[in-house]
Amino acid sequence: MTARRPIRVVAFGGGHGLGASLRALRRSASSVELDITAVVTVGDDGGSSGRLRAERDALLPPGDLRQALAALADDDPVAQRTAALLQHRFAPIGRVAGLDAADPLTGHAVGNLLLLGLMELVGDPVLALDHAAAMVQARGRVLPMATHAVGIEADVFGGDPSRPGETVTVRGQHAVAVTQGHVEAVRLTPAEPPACEAALAAIADADWLIFGPGSWYTSVLPHLLVPELAAAIVASPARRLITLNLGSDNETAGLSVADHLAALHWYLPGLRADAVLADARWVPEPEPVRDAAKALGARLILASLAVADGSPRHDPESLSVALVPLLGAVR
Amino acid sequence: MTARRPIRVVAFGGGHGLGASLRALRRSASSVELDITAVVTVGDDGGSSGRLRAERDALLPPGDLRQALAALADDDPVAQRTAALLQHRFAPIGRVAGLDAADPLTGHAVGNLLLLGLMELVGDPVLALDHAAAMVQARGRVLPMATHAVGIEADVFGGDPSRPGETVTVRGQHAVAVTQGHVEAVRLTPAEPPACEAALAAIADADWLIFGPGSWYTSVLPHLLVPELAAAIVASPARRLITLNLGSDNETAGLSVADHLAALHWYLPGLRADAVLADARWVPEPEPVRDAAKALGARLILASLAVADGSPRHDPESLSVALVPLLGAVR
Repeated sequence: MTARRPIRVVAFGGGHGLGASLRALRRSASSVELDITAVVTVGDDGGSSGRLRAERDALLPPGDLRQALAALADDDPVAQRTAALLQHRFAPIGRVAGLDAADPLTGHAVGNLLLLGLMELVGDPVLALDHAAAMVQARGRVLPMATHAVGIEADVFGGDPSRPGETVTVRGQHAVAVTQGHVEAVRLTPAEPPACEAALAAIADADWLIFGPGSWYTSVLPHLLVPELAAAIVASPARRLITLNLGSDNETAGLSVADHLAALHWYLPGLRADAVLADARWVPEPEPVRDAAKALGARLILASLAVADGSPRHDPESLSVALVPLLGAVR
Repeated sequence: MTARRPIRVVAFGGGHGLGASLRALRRSASSVELDITAVVTVGDDGGSSGRLRAERDALLPPGDLRQALAALADDDPVAQRTAALLQHRFAPIGRVAGLDAADPLTGHAVGNLLLLGLMELVGDPVLALDHAAAMVQARGRVLPMATHAVGIEADVFGGDPSRPGETVTVRGQHAVAVTQGHVEAVRLTPAEPPACEAALAAIADADWLIFGPGSWYTSVLPHLLVPELAAAIVASPARRLITLNLGSDNETAGLSVADHLAALHWYLPGLRADAVLADARWVPEPEPVRDAAKALGARLILASLAVADGSPRHDPESLSVALVPLLGAVR
């Protein structure tokens, strides 16, 4: 009798959305054996990551990678404290006599500096990420979607308050994420960044590919815009799950739930899916969503996924409860 | 039959000298079971540590603590890579178009930023150091000599090139370490910094206290200037070993080997020692050194301790060979 191999899951995204997905997968791994790989957007140009790109030409913006590592950290107290250290941001120092209140470290996450140093030290970003994963005893692997940082830009109707009624180009992931206008099209710069080879291999070997939740245009869609990654996703024998968000944010204001699914089809027409997971409270009229899912080949699964306080965030435990039977069914 | 407990060793110092001592002790631990504690100077005000004190009012200058942690890191490849990461300094970025060549991270050791963030995160510096030790699977404990950063200043004859023949006050560990004049007296500011409680406990429980090698005035002597630490050293039932340097540096130019021992007695008259370990090549006339050792109650042990290339640095393996029979004899 041979041991059953773990179910191989690749989760795509960035930021808090991917974090929620990975935390849920980590919990699921106690019920069904999982081999987890996170494939992370590398378009961040805001905050600490943006400063490191601007000031040190960082090969990859570390922020989203760091969040994924922290989400996968083992429950062991040492690993959890190391994860907390990675997530810790240097606080603004007080206005102490003789000290500048805005010193160069304020706002940087320790883990961003650590990842930057590690990539500088070992050269290969994948090796650096595998080492950082070992430092937090990560229950999975974290990979960048591309080998270099990318830019994200969008055509946004009403994106410039001084030119209402016009479509303007908004440049930078951060600017797109906070835009008040309506996003009409999103692009990467360069348009065809080289994909991370290890990510391509993980996709080819996967049993499940999971898209979302997360900022739809700036964390979920970018993967579909990397040509090699898109081709690998379409070609993979894996089943595909789309986890929908629990609300709209700035960049998707005005977009219906069904529109979120249509956007995936628009940017990657070859994408087929098996399941769409949504919170029942965010889908008061399931029919159009069920139809949009069906257009991708997927069935709609409604479950309770949100945290208890009413905010539009996924509860890792609830998400895990919904994931386990789904992922386990692949055997 | 009860298991023999490990021999408890406390090593005092800072910088490369303490690093050599700790690396030798770590090697010795494969022959004789050791419980190693490093008690580290906290006076550094140069380089990366100096910037962190000036810009962020760092509670403790992390540089010497980081070096001690790296020296105690386990041989395991992950631990060694984490240690290499701690030691890695952000390289100057090239003069890339649009980038400032001297960005705020250049020159900082990753481990200094990590220790700073860890102390900010967990509050207690000893807890922070114990966690950092776990991150490199350290084969011992690293403690600061005092709970806060201290200043080091010295009366230096000829310390100001524009005032030859005069004694001037030179302020700051870095300035004292590189002074071209003759150091007449060295002090801490504040004069009576509170000692680290855990260091006091380690000294009280020790079998061996080891002083040196290292920058004599700025890394070895400062411990004797912390009143509570000095009292604990004098009161400890432990045997005491003094490992002499292999040459003079700026701050000890003109000081004979015997003078190095006399300086310890001058700053802590109650200090008694059991053994003085020196490299035979640096002690061409052993008699005055033997007498100076005898004045402290110690015997002089001459051995080959230097690296093979002729530079005045201790070879951890040779130092370990000399230490093992000495430390083992305490049983």
